[in-house]
Amino acid sequence: MSHSIRLLIACPDHKGITAAISSFVEAHEGNIVRIDQYLKPPPSRRFFLRMEIEGEGFSLGREELADAFAPLAREHDMDWRSSYSDEPKRMVIMVSHYDHCLTDLLWRWDTGELDVRIPLVISNHPDLAPRVEAYSIPFHHLPVTPETKVEQESKVLELLADHNVDFVVLARYMQILTPRLLEAYPDRIINIHHSFLPAFAGASPYQRAYERGVKVIGATAHYATEELDAGPIIDQDVVRVSHWDEPDDMARVGQEVERRVLARAVRRHSEDRVLVDGTRTIVFV
Amino acid sequence: MSHSIRLLIACPDHKGITAAISSFVEAHEGNIVRIDQYLKPPPSRRFFLRMEIEGEGFSLGREELADAFAPLAREHDMDWRSSYSDEPKRMVIMVSHYDHCLTDLLWRWDTGELDVRIPLVISNHPDLAPRVEAYSIPFHHLPVTPETKVEQESKVLELLADHNVDFVVLARYMQILTPRLLEAYPDRIINIHHSFLPAFAGASPYQRAYERGVKVIGATAHYATEELDAGPIIDQDVVRVSHWDEPDDMARVGQEVERRVLARAVRRHSEDRVLVDGTRTIVFV
Amino acid sequence: MSHSIRLLIACPDHKGITAAISSFVEAHEGNIVRIDQYLKPPPSRRFFLRMEIEGEGFSLGREELADAFAPLAREHDMDWRSSYSDEPKRMVIMVSHYDHCLTDLLWRWDTGELDVRIPLVISNHPDLAPRVEAYSIPFHHLPVTPETKVEQESKVLELLADHNVDFVVLARYMQILTPRLLEAYPDRIINIHHSFLPAFAGASPYQRAYERGVKVIGATAHYATEELDAGPIIDQDVVRVSHWDEPDDMARVGQEVERRVLARAVRRHSEDRVLVDGTRTIVFV
Amino acid sequence: MSHSIRLLIACPDHKGITAAISSFVEAHEGNIVRIDQYLKPPPSRRFFLRMEIEGEGFSLGREELADAFAPLAREHDMDWRSSYSDEPKRMVIMVSHYDHCLTDLLWRWDTGELDVRIPLVISNHPDLAPRVEAYSIPFHHLPVTPETKVEQESKVLELLADHNVDFVVLARYMQILTPRLLEAYPDRIINIHHSFLPAFAGASPYQRAYERGVKVIGATAHYATEELDAGPIIDQDVVRVSHWDEPDDMARVGQEVERRVLARAVRRHSEDRVLVDGTRTIVFV
Repeated sequence: MSHSIRLLIACPDHKGITAAISSFVEAHEGNIVRIDQYLKPPPSRRFFLRMEIEGEGFSLGREELADAFAPLAREHDMDWRSSYSDEPKRMVIMVSHYDHCLTDLLWRWDTGELDVRIPLVISNHPDLAPRVEAYSIPFHHLPVTPETKVEQESKVLELLADHNVDFVVLARYMQILTPRLLEAYPDRIINIHHSFLPAFAGASPYQRAYERGVKVIGATAHYATEELDAGPIIDQDVVRVSHWDEPDDMARVGQEVERRVLARAVRRHSEDRVLVDGTRTIVFV
Repeated sequence: MSHSIRLLIACPDHKGITAAISSFVEAHEGNIVRIDQYLKPPPSRRFFLRMEIEGEGFSLGREELADAFAPLAREHDMDWRSSYSDEPKRMVIMVSHYDHCLTDLLWRWDTGELDVRIPLVISNHPDLAPRVEAYSIPFHHLPVTPETKVEQESKVLELLADHNVDFVVLARYMQILTPRLLEAYPDRIINIHHSFLPAFAGASPYQRAYERGVKVIGATAHYATEELDAGPIIDQDVVRVSHWDEPDDMARVGQEVERRVLARAVRRHSEDRVLVDGTRTIVFV
Repeated sequence: MSHSIRLLIACPDHKGITAAISSFVEAHEGNIVRIDQYLKPPPSRRFFLRMEIEGEGFSLGREELADAFAPLAREHDMDWRSSYSDEPKRMVIMVSHYDHCLTDLLWRWDTGELDVRIPLVISNHPDLAPRVEAYSIPFHHLPVTPETKVEQESKVLELLADHNVDFVVLARYMQILTPRLLEAYPDRIINIHHSFLPAFAGASPYQRAYERGVKVIGATAHYATEELDAGPIIDQDVVRVSHWDEPDDMARVGQEVERRVLARAVRRHSEDRVLVDGTRTIVFV
Repeated sequence: MSHSIRLLIACPDHKGITAAISSFVEAHEGNIVRIDQYLKPPPSRRFFLRMEIEGEGFSLGREELADAFAPLAREHDMDWRSSYSDEPKRMVIMVSHYDHCLTDLLWRWDTGELDVRIPLVISNHPDLAPRVEAYSIPFHHLPVTPETKVEQESKVLELLADHNVDFVVLARYMQILTPRLLEAYPDRIINIHHSFLPAFAGASPYQRAYERGVKVIGATAHYATEELDAGPIIDQDVVRVSHWDEPDDMARVGQEVERRVLARAVRRHSEDRVLVDGTRTIVFV
């Protein structure tokens, strides 16, 4: 199959909005291969749409789409963006000591399951350099202390800018980001938390799950926001545990859930399937 | 919310098909509240669509839609149908001895979870009459023997016709239907089978699951076709079992899965979310 | 199969404890049909055991077991109890408006899936009387206002005592119990909460789950304690939701999880499969 | 914690069997840390037991246990075996082209999640040598043609014998083993099949699942026997799919299930948690 163009739109609902968009596509010889649409119920009635258009035959060039679509977007007060399936997003992974999420992402990237580019990996610890360099991906060690935190985040921001990064994955990165970094990449920093949020936000969720005696543990992938573990949730999943499971066992089976949930969230984000609506996400699977 | 109109369409893919349909809706003052669409990959490239249009404001009357839409349908070689959310489908349940699926459906209907009408229940055994009549639904006892089978099915067909029935649910009805009945309601007879098909098609699936030593059992809701347990699958689900589970235990936990799967299939069918494509279904959830 | 005797034991771990117990059983001609055992890891090293002994052939009468076992229990500092599978526990259901958990429990009781006696149902509202009386179970309406709460709970306690009740199920009973009632039935009052605790403890969990934008909702059966929704968890389960699910949809699919989780907890409690260890439970499934 | 001794027993049920075994352990100063037991219902009434005894303090040496236990084993007609938790089993992985199961097992072994030794990996293709050698595990390439099959299996048998191998994992090994190899390692060759058996035994299960239109796909780990994909099942799991999932997508999400199921089966086998009873397994989790 040739490439496709992805159109992501959010706007107030109007009669004829779908007709207007699809007529625009048709007018430029485009063939719609997939539409996903969601109309938020009253009182909001906000309209969300993801459209995939076949690249072959579409008469608008990559430089022309924005200008051509602008009048329609203005008329309907649209938030919108577009992307091309043959221009994979540029993703940076940030990591600390735990390697399971990192390794899993690199593996899925290596097998082609994740269609992204990974220009670099950043860590506040040197341990995982060999793991990353085995894939010929540059590894940047930026140690963080309370004193150097601000300075090091500036370096992170520089690296992200230098490499034209689209989104960041915190693969068990054990540092809280400052607002400056968060604001630079709104809805573009994906964190994995090792509990089914909002339960056990913060530190040591497996230990606390054990102490509370839950029978189900989980993991949550969400966009990072200033409030810790409170950003819009992209995906969650769980696994059953029993009285036999000590905190270590919970970590073991939980890490499998973390990997699965994070990979699913990254995949969906990288394919432009996720739209943020306040504290909630619309995920077109 | 007011009622909505559901448009179900299957046709060969053409450029502009979505634009054509949505322009038709807009031309008649319709507001699209939901689109679900599926384009079967090459070589088939068949296009499937489910559209919900707000009833309020739509300028075409219920008698007018078919004629107005006909030219477009012809032009694009569409299989299509429409329905109105305020005209619930008329559903008949057929049942034998096991009551769990019947009871569950009646209960969900009673609570409003299933938006259907149930003009009657048909059984080849008299046992469940009180269960049905408690809901003031007429119960028809049509006992079946090898000799009377053809005759009794004629009566079933008469009853279905007399009550203008839209679809039939075989809620553990333990008789094989004849082609005559199946052909009268193609893709409109839903059967629940107590295994994850294609495993354990036919008789005694729980016993056979026990003997095979599986660790997961399941249930399958599918459209009945001439070949036993081979029709297009609408929904399936499973539950874990262990060496502790004897066939009776499997039946107990399995019946819960049967109920859940059948209810989900009936709900989706009744909301026109299921399209059949050969041996497969497209289910817009 | 004949009846069986269930022995439930918790005590500090000692070498030879299993040998001592099984030798006791053997000395009285008992045949052990099932052992489930759990040794809490250090530093606690508390030993938990559930043993099923075949009733037939066991030489100790029902009146004799306690005296015969007392020396061993004393020697090993055991918390212990016994029960007989042919003496089903006496369970009272307390309910308010929502009927799904009540109906489900009655149904499972009626089909024999729950092996309990239900001497009465208590509600603070009159609505569900017909539902209960259809099963020939007495329904007691005890309306509660802030003024009458203490008095009405005294009546509840009387009813429970009069009917020699073993345990109580709060099947969406929308009143907070006073410590007096809770203390009278420690680890014997089962509550169902409509979230995966500890997330969304307290009121309106589905609404709050919607607002938080979770992708998984759940239900939790736990023993009621003074702190709301904080008692030892017996069972939990979850179901996936999406952006399409409004709070009402979450309630609909969530109620199915509530029913399943509560039924499982009740079944396990009624079969003496649950042992409480502080804030946690040991559940021998 | 110190090491533990695992005792696995299967025998006809007798009164006093548990007492006899636990008294034996006690007589040799052993502390039982875990008992799992299963009594197959009549008419079979076969007794299965797994016991973990604390190594520290147990007075029987590793060379002495067999002789000391023999009289009891004879008396009760036991099939039995023992193992020591500090003597990890020696496991050989056989693989062809697909690397996901191999990579997953190596990773879990590397992180310590799988407590086994891997003296070598055998493949009929050279492709995966670097993957294996990266972990400093010897890789043996034994290409198989119809002409060389018997000869090459002889070499496999030699390698297994030379390395004193306990069990073999077929991690998507695409050759059918001959009876000779199967009989040399009864209930000790674990195969992963990429369907929920008994559905889609044999070749191309994802393609066939797609064609049948199932809504759930799965994977099965089982002991290999002469009849293809018909051996005793150790573990199974499933994942939901939809009409969007082409055979390739099924393979992608299915491979995740394969990895999970195989890892769980290997872990349980390596910890002596699996007992085979004809076509079924007893798995003490």
